[in-house]
Amino acid sequence: MASKAVSVADLVERAQAGEARAVARLISLVEDQAPELREVSAALSPHTGRAHIVGLTGAPGVGKSTSTSALVKALRAQGRRVGVLAVDPTSPFSGGALLGDRIRMQDHATDEGVYIRSMASRGHLGGLSVAAPQALRVLDAAGCDVVLVETVGVGQSEVEISGLADTTLVLLAPGMGDGIQAAKAGILEIGDIFVVNKADREGAASTRRELRSVVAMSDRGGDAWTPPVLLTVATTGEGVDEVAEQIALHHAHLADSGELGRRRLARTRREIEALALNAVRQKLGDLSGDARLDTLAADVLSGTTDPYAAADTLIENL
Amino acid sequence: MASKAVSVADLVERAQAGEARAVARLISLVEDQAPELREVSAALSPHTGRAHIVGLTGAPGVGKSTSTSALVKALRAQGRRVGVLAVDPTSPFSGGALLGDRIRMQDHATDEGVYIRSMASRGHLGGLSVAAPQALRVLDAAGCDVVLVETVGVGQSEVEISGLADTTLVLLAPGMGDGIQAAKAGILEIGDIFVVNKADREGAASTRRELRSVVAMSDRGGDAWTPPVLLTVATTGEGVDEVAEQIALHHAHLADSGELGRRRLARTRREIEALALNAVRQKLGDLSGDARLDTLAADVLSGTTDPYAAADTLIENL
Repeated sequence: MASKAVSVADLVERAQAGEARAVARLISLVEDQAPELREVSAALSPHTGRAHIVGLTGAPGVGKSTSTSALVKALRAQGRRVGVLAVDPTSPFSGGALLGDRIRMQDHATDEGVYIRSMASRGHLGGLSVAAPQALRVLDAAGCDVVLVETVGVGQSEVEISGLADTTLVLLAPGMGDGIQAAKAGILEIGDIFVVNKADREGAASTRRELRSVVAMSDRGGDAWTPPVLLTVATTGEGVDEVAEQIALHHAHLADSGELGRRRLARTRREIEALALNAVRQKLGDLSGDARLDTLAADVLSGTTDPYAAADTLIENL
Repeated sequence: MASKAVSVADLVERAQAGEARAVARLISLVEDQAPELREVSAALSPHTGRAHIVGLTGAPGVGKSTSTSALVKALRAQGRRVGVLAVDPTSPFSGGALLGDRIRMQDHATDEGVYIRSMASRGHLGGLSVAAPQALRVLDAAGCDVVLVETVGVGQSEVEISGLADTTLVLLAPGMGDGIQAAKAGILEIGDIFVVNKADREGAASTRRELRSVVAMSDRGGDAWTPPVLLTVATTGEGVDEVAEQIALHHAHLADSGELGRRRLARTRREIEALALNAVRQKLGDLSGDARLDTLAADVLSGTTDPYAAADTLIENL
């Protein structure tokens, strides 16, 4: 035990000093829910809370990987340390789908001011709701000024990503951004900044116009933040500096208005709840192979009990 | 209390006698997690286990609603009582997205042998993993021979639907069905029957061919079920009788092989676990507004504790 304690403290110290391998090792420990997990979490805690967490989401094909890469470049040009967490919550079966796209990120592979990590939902007990926040804590403690969380955007995962981030950036492409579609997808509620990428394509201006009018309709009034709608061509970097600027402006707005503290408090509450729920789920999972659960299920099937009564019995067994 | 007890027993009796309003009321009670929920569950339990639960899934645009409607017609022509549960797990914000499509189902609105119900994930504590199985129990107890569960198909929800059903039917359309895409989407693992709808369109034969070859590759050998790949034009009803026939054949196969019992036991185990987890989640949720959780979150933010230690404290508070 004593040698492990030294090793975790050592890893955290090395991660803070900017050693990429220590950062990678720490993320693996939290991701795999290693036995050292709690020790890692405790050691990281005093060093977190500095990074600005920026979520990037959008439908497949809008250019999320390219945009992430371009944003990393823009932020690095400002001298900021950048972390990237690329998550794929839609891929229960194949964990490798994102890796092809990630090759593009090798632009930054030799840059010591950038940490990049991919994460698929497969194999994560409790899903990304448990693993992703812990990985973000590592990147935060490692001294990243900004951490970009990139996710494929479908339904609930978008909501999830907005729950992880201080600032949520929603990417669209021309023709994909008509107002009603956007409203349906639920992205209007979560976007702090909208970016119409591939702005060199036909329809970019009208997509921007439609989005702006829909955003205006949901204007919260007063000193509230009005989400800007920006145009970029991520492949050439056009417009990306303005995105970086708006990210900084939104951070300042959050800090000045007290909203940053409120969002982080709400996020931390959810994180604690998710961990508690996960702990209970694991205890229930330990009962999955249990003969008692089989007996309960058989009793429900035969009609001698009902699922709610069986669930009560299961909880009593915990 | 006594009058409520009478009323639930009465509702169940009326539902079994085929009264649509009683069925609707019972589903509302389980869906809304009404106080009578446990009573309803207990009253239904002896009358369940007869219905064949058939899941229909597929990407948007393959014609799920039309196919469901055509299947209902084919099953009704055989004199079978049919329930339809249409779920939309991708719509956290808008509960009404499916309703437009549902209008088509009004073909069956005056047919007393058909119950139709839409369900969105919004507002369901524990999501569809809790609400949908209970709604299926109501339709089962109401004497449906077959219950069709229709869902929009994206990622995890497909997996979820296959967990609910005895038989999972995967719908595709020409051009959308190439093998690699299907494999990526994870549908090969869950499909018991594949249907290429819109078979009057170009490419239907080649989509069928590709699917067949991919299905053949994952042949489980021996007496295992080999998923058929069928062609339909749901708008005209072409090929739909064969789908109904294959559904019956698959049911017979499940029953003969003992797989039906195994699937239902596994499903019931998951259902009990989901209910237990949901009960714990509700207890945690009761703490959401609790000052103790706020204090824990603030302590994590200030670095005086870490999320795992905070989660432990939260569990102790339960």
